[in-house]
Amino acid sequence: MNLNEEIRSLAAEAKCASRGLMTLSTADRNRCLVAMADGLDRASADLLEANARDMETGRGMGLSEAMLDRLKLTEARIAAMAAGVREVAALPDPVGRVLDERVRPNGLRLQKVAVPIGVIVIIYESRPNVTADAASLCFKTGNATILRGGKEAMHSNLLIAQIMVSAAKAVLPTFPDHAIQVVPTADRAAIPALLSLPQYVDLCIPRGGESLIRAVMDCTKVPVIKHYKGVCHVFVDREADPAMALDILVNAKCQRPSTCNAAETLLVDWPIATTFLPQAAQRLAPYQVELRVDKPSRAVLGANPLPEGLTLKAAADSDWETEHNNYILNVRVVDGLNDAMAHIARFGSAHSDAIVTRDEARARRFLQEVDSAAVYWNASTRFTDGGEFGMGAEIGISTDKVGARGPMGLDELCTYKWIGWGTGQVRG
Amino acid sequence: MNLNEEIRSLAAEAKCASRGLMTLSTADRNRCLVAMADGLDRASADLLEANARDMETGRGMGLSEAMLDRLKLTEARIAAMAAGVREVAALPDPVGRVLDERVRPNGLRLQKVAVPIGVIVIIYESRPNVTADAASLCFKTGNATILRGGKEAMHSNLLIAQIMVSAAKAVLPTFPDHAIQVVPTADRAAIPALLSLPQYVDLCIPRGGESLIRAVMDCTKVPVIKHYKGVCHVFVDREADPAMALDILVNAKCQRPSTCNAAETLLVDWPIATTFLPQAAQRLAPYQVELRVDKPSRAVLGANPLPEGLTLKAAADSDWETEHNNYILNVRVVDGLNDAMAHIARFGSAHSDAIVTRDEARARRFLQEVDSAAVYWNASTRFTDGGEFGMGAEIGISTDKVGARGPMGLDELCTYKWIGWGTGQVRG
Repeated sequence: MNLNEEIRSLAAEAKCASRGLMTLSTADRNRCLVAMADGLDRASADLLEANARDMETGRGMGLSEAMLDRLKLTEARIAAMAAGVREVAALPDPVGRVLDERVRPNGLRLQKVAVPIGVIVIIYESRPNVTADAASLCFKTGNATILRGGKEAMHSNLLIAQIMVSAAKAVLPTFPDHAIQVVPTADRAAIPALLSLPQYVDLCIPRGGESLIRAVMDCTKVPVIKHYKGVCHVFVDREADPAMALDILVNAKCQRPSTCNAAETLLVDWPIATTFLPQAAQRLAPYQVELRVDKPSRAVLGANPLPEGLTLKAAADSDWETEHNNYILNVRVVDGLNDAMAHIARFGSAHSDAIVTRDEARARRFLQEVDSAAVYWNASTRFTDGGEFGMGAEIGISTDKVGARGPMGLDELCTYKWIGWGTGQVRG
Repeated sequence: MNLNEEIRSLAAEAKCASRGLMTLSTADRNRCLVAMADGLDRASADLLEANARDMETGRGMGLSEAMLDRLKLTEARIAAMAAGVREVAALPDPVGRVLDERVRPNGLRLQKVAVPIGVIVIIYESRPNVTADAASLCFKTGNATILRGGKEAMHSNLLIAQIMVSAAKAVLPTFPDHAIQVVPTADRAAIPALLSLPQYVDLCIPRGGESLIRAVMDCTKVPVIKHYKGVCHVFVDREADPAMALDILVNAKCQRPSTCNAAETLLVDWPIATTFLPQAAQRLAPYQVELRVDKPSRAVLGANPLPEGLTLKAAADSDWETEHNNYILNVRVVDGLNDAMAHIARFGSAHSDAIVTRDEARARRFLQEVDSAAVYWNASTRFTDGGEFGMGAEIGISTDKVGARGPMGLDELCTYKWIGWGTGQVRG
């Protein structure tokens, strides 16, 4: 079998499995999830062995220590992965929820009901725990999954899926064999092959950077919900409470800078720039933050000695649209709300943006006019997260507007159908 | 300017207009819609003139009489078009609806609020009234529209958009000039040019047949919600009430066969085939229906003289997946519910499918397991329609699962954003 045939067969099997999944009860699905978690726990030694092979591959590829750490499984990480699957089992079932209901004048009762999407392809990088997370969330919602992780994690990913499937089959013989599949080849051509099969694949969720997203968008013939970068902003308005603004800025930038909801850019309203920027520098210095500043910010910050630990650089044009994922913060002085919103519209990634102000009118304009998945008034951008939103778990954070926007939890892994309950109605 | 530059500029203007639209109040938008309707009424003579030129082009292209009739505007049709726009003005505003609200333990209040999608490209064929329909629905929901109709309707479409924009500007000077645009060229390369601009275009809705949908899917880098064909089924179960089944079948096939929710295929359960099929033939004969039958149906129906008006032909393999849009009905005898559902899964287009039965258990299995946008128990497939669903108006019927499924009304022309109302919350 050549690659295209192999991928076509895998996708066709997934479609077939998805039909089987539609008939499983909530209790059946949860029982399988608990069994999958137990299976992962039990197979700890095998998983460590498979992962050791991946670590070897990773070292051979010259991965950085940080990347190798992401790739690595430990007993604790396996236990955490299993615990995550158990948590998914405990969440309420989103399938079958009645989202809308109406009885038409002719007596036809219409229900809009949440149902599985079908077959979901998930493309992600490195961390093997994503395999178990994504597979369990998709299975909970009655979807078949085709997973495509980084090639360096192939052995770990294949084994995780295999363990989950056999554990589920052991407690539910009708569990469809191909409900959870990992693409068994590192060949990059597997992605266009998969995404050219709209008859089998209902949705692709790519989680990653520019090159991954571009590769997907260049070839896809199936719907995509992108999980793309977060270039998030904190706008400190002239009427901001300075202490609150400092807390929010430091949290948004430094609490976990590697996440997509961390702030990349501080926009300061000019009337407060001379007071706020030195205070911000003071607060960011302990985190060794590098500031990439525009000329007015540099003029303010350069007027006094920099606090120990802080670095100052002139911002390059590209900085404004870069997700640094690190202790780097772009800083710009803006001329009020309109200027701030124009900057966000031009350079932002429509992920998460915050305004800090006491002025309600300006806050409301910001909340309405900034076209991002999440907008905050006097709160940190770091809240854009399924757990923080009370969704229980998330497959990721959509930067798209169609299908799902912002954190994607179990509800967002469903579509809906309309059910018409009739008594012989015909259209007049 | 070459085509790519022209299209890029048009799309950039639309994006800019969409930001202006976000700030218009409900009252402003409705006032503009009423003015647009009045404008269309007033410009009746100009519209007839522009349309006469299109009719000439259409004749030159050798369009059929049916196609020419679809293209033609009359005073009555212009009045109906204007009335449609007024109806859209009268509908409730979907923008700003709070879809979900929660207060987190830290006091952060989260609201999920319906907002415009942004810039929507609509690709459709022939009928110029779609221009006013689509533009008014998109404008009502705060979206900028780029319309691409058939080239034979170009003059009519351009003028309709121009009338709507200038009428709106006359009552609201801040109305954004580029909120409604018609692609001003018949060059087919305009479509790939438009759909390669995800920075400006948020969604494409193609309404049409296989070749249009394929052309879109082959080039798009923007999200698409397809309005594709309807290969709809009526399954008459062994426990069906025969009179009800006949009424539903005749309605689904003959009430308006050119629509996507009309039935193309009758599936008859074998134990009732010998009684049901001759009765069905009797009822379909007055509509001059052509039956395309499998062997068992032919055996039943060929046993007696056919009723006057009916034609019988052997079904070709391709018939089962064809949207005939005409008085043609495929007929197949199936071996019970599973066989019927397998047929629908294989040949259907996941649009609308109905089961007629008195058996609740089988009905519920059909409703759950048939993976179509709308599934009916004892009702006609013809109900899949925004008006019939009580949505007030529809842009069309989505055959996709992501973004919207089934009838797309005003609610479905919105996306949402999350608004976080804080008092200084940071993530711990």
